[in-house]
Amino acid sequence: MTFKYHQKVLFKHCDPAKIVFYPRYFEMMNDAVEVFFDEALDWPFEKMHETNGVPTVAISTQFQAPSRHGDHLVLQIEATKLGKASMDIVTRATCDDELRFETTTTLVCVNRDGRPEAWPDAVRSKIEQFMKG
Amino acid sequence: MTFKYHQKVLFKHCDPAKIVFYPRYFEMMNDAVEVFFDEALDWPFEKMHETNGVPTVAISTQFQAPSRHGDHLVLQIEATKLGKASMDIVTRATCDDELRFETTTTLVCVNRDGRPEAWPDAVRSKIEQFMKG
Amino acid sequence: MTFKYHQKVLFKHCDPAKIVFYPRYFEMMNDAVEVFFDEALDWPFEKMHETNGVPTVAISTQFQAPSRHGDHLVLQIEATKLGKASMDIVTRATCDDELRFETTTTLVCVNRDGRPEAWPDAVRSKIEQFMKG
Amino acid sequence: MTFKYHQKVLFKHCDPAKIVFYPRYFEMMNDAVEVFFDEALDWPFEKMHETNGVPTVAISTQFQAPSRHGDHLVLQIEATKLGKASMDIVTRATCDDELRFETTTTLVCVNRDGRPEAWPDAVRSKIEQFMKG
Repeated sequence: MTFKYHQKVLFKHCDPAKIVFYPRYFEMMNDAVEVFFDEALDWPFEKMHETNGVPTVAISTQFQAPSRHGDHLVLQIEATKLGKASMDIVTRATCDDELRFETTTTLVCVNRDGRPEAWPDAVRSKIEQFMKG
Repeated sequence: MTFKYHQKVLFKHCDPAKIVFYPRYFEMMNDAVEVFFDEALDWPFEKMHETNGVPTVAISTQFQAPSRHGDHLVLQIEATKLGKASMDIVTRATCDDELRFETTTTLVCVNRDGRPEAWPDAVRSKIEQFMKG
Repeated sequence: MTFKYHQKVLFKHCDPAKIVFYPRYFEMMNDAVEVFFDEALDWPFEKMHETNGVPTVAISTQFQAPSRHGDHLVLQIEATKLGKASMDIVTRATCDDELRFETTTTLVCVNRDGRPEAWPDAVRSKIEQFMKG
Repeated sequence: MTFKYHQKVLFKHCDPAKIVFYPRYFEMMNDAVEVFFDEALDWPFEKMHETNGVPTVAISTQFQAPSRHGDHLVLQIEATKLGKASMDIVTRATCDDELRFETTTTLVCVNRDGRPEAWPDAVRSKIEQFMKG
């Protein structure tokens, strides 16, 4: 299974060169992950943050082609690695099947003190459904 | 030579977990690169964008430790690779000598049509001064 | 007729005080106006900006109550004044019928040189449908 | 006394119409207020937020002229009204003496529960020095 998040490129995302300003892409990626936790893992951020956090500890992105105002992007999320308290996800963004960027993100599940804590069992089994087969 | 950019962590950078929200770090990194072009390479973005652009084509970051409101960050920039029309830079952010994040960014110099164009000679020789020795 | 735009309060909107950081509200308002032009006025920003612009020349907001991560906001837009090349709109944001903020925005339709230009007839007649009765 | 905050217009502030995207102005205004509290009122946000908050309850802005990448803005802050737990400030932004925008902001000092709390005496007397004479 893969998870898809749709994002139209808005005016606010674009810079004077008329393409998406890359820090805005990181907001989009974060939005996609927030919706992934909500809809796919059934652990919405607003509930998760009552007891835990999932800071990003590493992120690596290749921008293959620029995006422009009005483009309809699809961000597709897959899990590629699942540790006791960590997870790697790959986010591929396309527009009409053209790849725009590809990102690998490492997230860690932490407790209130910021220390790694094992994924809850229910969350772990949901993540497994989104592991690249 | 290395280039240093100072950024205090402001209220706007922080999230409900009281640490810097990582997409804000990418705005900081971009600000640092903009000032680097202005002060170190003598090619301010507002002038450079009249004829060229320097899109980020790849960026990879490790976040070693969280930053909090009021922290005084120093972002140190070095060039690690210089191509005909591209450049890799490494940005290391510290607070009181504690490493907070380290990023490798690949920038490409492009013309108005978005095609790679060789660095102007004056810019190239300035970049060489910031190459890691 | 009124236009409704739905926005869940996301992690990125909130600050260390765990409420929406007010500059993020202005991004939301702008998003709502962009979708209003697209869906209600049939003049999507990405098309409109090929020939025109609609800069905000005045904006005034009262924040009645704070919003928190996970809140489901409804932004309701009505036009309250329609000039030859300008328009006032009122945006009221509620969560479960509690008013969170109310904004009056004055937009001006401009041409490529930034000079006021009359609303296109088709757009004008659509705006009239959203005038507060 | 007036307080001055300097902000160069950066690439990230500008939109495809090559002028400052207005929600970015609200980030600038907030930055200016944060520095005002730090340098003029001697109550830095990172310290103030340990016990209090200063939410914006109303803000009203006129944008007189657009700003462009590279413009050197000066934001000048004056207090125009001082209540027991509230304050109105006016922020005027100019570039080479041309007025770009003028904002009136109402801030309220609140305690941890979000309830109004009188300004600390030391802060109150500093604010009085920045009252429009």
